[in-house]
Amino acid sequence: MRIQLLLTGNEIMAGDTIDSNSAVIAHHLQEIGLIVYRRVTIGDDPGLLVNEIQQLSRDSDLLIVNGGLGPTIDDLTAEALAEACGTELRENPEAVKHLEEWCEKRGFKTNKANFKQTILPDGCVIVPNPNGSAVGFRVMLNECMVICTPGVPGELAHMLEHAIIPLIIKEFSIEPARMTRRLRLFGLGESTLQQLIDDNFPDWPAEVALGFRANLPILELKLGVSSKSLLPVRDQWEERIEALVGDYILGYDNDDLAGVVVREMTRQGLKIALAESCTGGRIASQITGVSGASAVFEAGFVTYSNKAKHSQLGVRNTTIEEHGEVSEEVVREMAHGALDKSGADLAVAVSGIAGPDGGTKDKPVGTVWIAWGQRGHIQAQKMRYRMGRKMFQALVTATALDLVRRSLSGITNEPRYFRDRKA
Amino acid sequence: MRIQLLLTGNEIMAGDTIDSNSAVIAHHLQEIGLIVYRRVTIGDDPGLLVNEIQQLSRDSDLLIVNGGLGPTIDDLTAEALAEACGTELRENPEAVKHLEEWCEKRGFKTNKANFKQTILPDGCVIVPNPNGSAVGFRVMLNECMVICTPGVPGELAHMLEHAIIPLIIKEFSIEPARMTRRLRLFGLGESTLQQLIDDNFPDWPAEVALGFRANLPILELKLGVSSKSLLPVRDQWEERIEALVGDYILGYDNDDLAGVVVREMTRQGLKIALAESCTGGRIASQITGVSGASAVFEAGFVTYSNKAKHSQLGVRNTTIEEHGEVSEEVVREMAHGALDKSGADLAVAVSGIAGPDGGTKDKPVGTVWIAWGQRGHIQAQKMRYRMGRKMFQALVTATALDLVRRSLSGITNEPRYFRDRKA
Repeated sequence: MRIQLLLTGNEIMAGDTIDSNSAVIAHHLQEIGLIVYRRVTIGDDPGLLVNEIQQLSRDSDLLIVNGGLGPTIDDLTAEALAEACGTELRENPEAVKHLEEWCEKRGFKTNKANFKQTILPDGCVIVPNPNGSAVGFRVMLNECMVICTPGVPGELAHMLEHAIIPLIIKEFSIEPARMTRRLRLFGLGESTLQQLIDDNFPDWPAEVALGFRANLPILELKLGVSSKSLLPVRDQWEERIEALVGDYILGYDNDDLAGVVVREMTRQGLKIALAESCTGGRIASQITGVSGASAVFEAGFVTYSNKAKHSQLGVRNTTIEEHGEVSEEVVREMAHGALDKSGADLAVAVSGIAGPDGGTKDKPVGTVWIAWGQRGHIQAQKMRYRMGRKMFQALVTATALDLVRRSLSGITNEPRYFRDRKA
Repeated sequence: MRIQLLLTGNEIMAGDTIDSNSAVIAHHLQEIGLIVYRRVTIGDDPGLLVNEIQQLSRDSDLLIVNGGLGPTIDDLTAEALAEACGTELRENPEAVKHLEEWCEKRGFKTNKANFKQTILPDGCVIVPNPNGSAVGFRVMLNECMVICTPGVPGELAHMLEHAIIPLIIKEFSIEPARMTRRLRLFGLGESTLQQLIDDNFPDWPAEVALGFRANLPILELKLGVSSKSLLPVRDQWEERIEALVGDYILGYDNDDLAGVVVREMTRQGLKIALAESCTGGRIASQITGVSGASAVFEAGFVTYSNKAKHSQLGVRNTTIEEHGEVSEEVVREMAHGALDKSGADLAVAVSGIAGPDGGTKDKPVGTVWIAWGQRGHIQAQKMRYRMGRKMFQALVTATALDLVRRSLSGITNEPRYFRDRKA
């Protein structure tokens, strides 16, 4: 079964929108064992759209078109599809009903621009979109099923789960199977992991395909096989990978560091407090982004200034004067202060120089001290991350969460990044 | 000049990586007045890669290939390009030198996997990549310049700015020009804005193309013209848009709410303190993500629990008992507490129900109270955002920042979202 995607939108071509939709589509298809063969992205050009719809439909069993369903004049998908199919555009009563109900439910008044979304190719079948004002729709063209979907990510995701994937399973008689196992790691680089695998498993079997994905701060390793009969082989080699780099594996599939930390703290009945300087609230916001975080999150102190470190956390002014705000002594006092002020069981404190300014010869931009651990067992480590401000903040946040994850999991081996990121 | 992009990577096709690179490439090209005509994305399949490189080069003046330069076995670009050109792969001395220096500078040892990145098509020209271990390279094929670039975003961005864009300007004799003006708005929906424009400017000129981009929480409106002679017309109509919806325009180009707030507070010499419950540190982390934030950011209190609201901010337990933690009284006390404890000039406090649990009949999931303003002038507003947890947190964060932006700019008109998001 050959699947292609056609993404449309000047805002995507111009780099003003980052296309997360094709990833979401691919993910949903992968869940039922299907892969996307190829995708084409073009701007809002009617001629180009018609041409691509015709070309791609000739070469596919399924073509998913994304974008261009909205109420504005640059939304051209319905028009282009009608032309590609040689049919007329017509007001679709089902789409009108949906729009009116959708607006009423939200207390919005319908306007003329909205109604553009109800003018669809004659003979198309509606694909429901309960989250948005524009319905999806599908037609058959050149023996290819063409499904048109909205560009708004939340609408698309809901539609895939509730309408499109069930439709594909039914229409193409798919027997869902998951051939790929996704391991998620923190603290190992792509080439380091590849080298470790090469060195330790020279006999790695060709039928277990390895895929790497470096999406900082997480590295994902995929083990894929092409048929169900190979699943035991895949699982056996996965076990070897786990024996080799298990300390770095934070989880599977969509696990992230904050989610794993919240899950483990909930299991152990622990509460955390955060004292953040250079990360400025990022660790707190990642933890509180996890549903159910209120069971484990006690308090967060964003103490960016020295005054705040003193007044909110009780860090002594003399400690700051003697050692500087980026020092072992200060992060330890921050961690103790966070525990004392909040009554939490576990604390993380970070202080560093995010840059671009503020570095010195002794403490260049990118230097950071992290303290973490449970009451009476606070550890501290200095590192240096040589990168831009945003990436520094993101990586220090991930490192702090990983150190908590390691301590909650009882991992006592020192992570390689202490060595790799030596200050 | 026709430009196409070819993106490669199983991780992109499988939806495991979101492709931000093509947006970055398009943005850089747009800065010099060039647009991408079409882009094709495929997996790591050697045959498919060779075929696409040949096809696309026949139909383009410039083809930028992104991805597949890494050290792992699924990185196939050099191999495919050599085959497409009918040349051999060979160890490139310049690439070897770069790799060795790059590793040495970082204290990394080179490994065998790394050296794969130095085996390149014979006769290619190196495109420097100071941020990564893999160099870029280019060849001419079918009278098209083919430039191969790394998939790691930070490496690509640096390379575009310092090597590729200057190269294109030179080789294609480009005279850079910016035809597009990008206005960034918060608090107006896409169809509302389209309708406002339709209603107020029935005589909108065809030569000023309108583009909308809804990338929550920001809506971007683009005004584009096709030649330099039309720039005065564009500017004239831009002024009309500003007169119509100026209160909602937070800035231009890459401006974001936090950046604008930091800039304005710096100008006015004000300091801010935050008291965050349901946003869990997001407002603090957005502000501290702006370089130079230390001049304006005094303190952040992430008071997720009632205990923390009381102990960190001095919210009275009786206030919480009488009114509930999501109430005008509590956010006002949080804001006053943040001002008192930090000595800042301006505070924002938020308390709401992010969900999925915790809603009641009176205060359903999505309800939020926000208090904001300078000492002695604290305002408070209740709203309801009916959406998932992450989107709720993102939108409440943006709303809080927008309310600060409005008050710093002296905008006294009530924003439409108070009405649209009525609790």
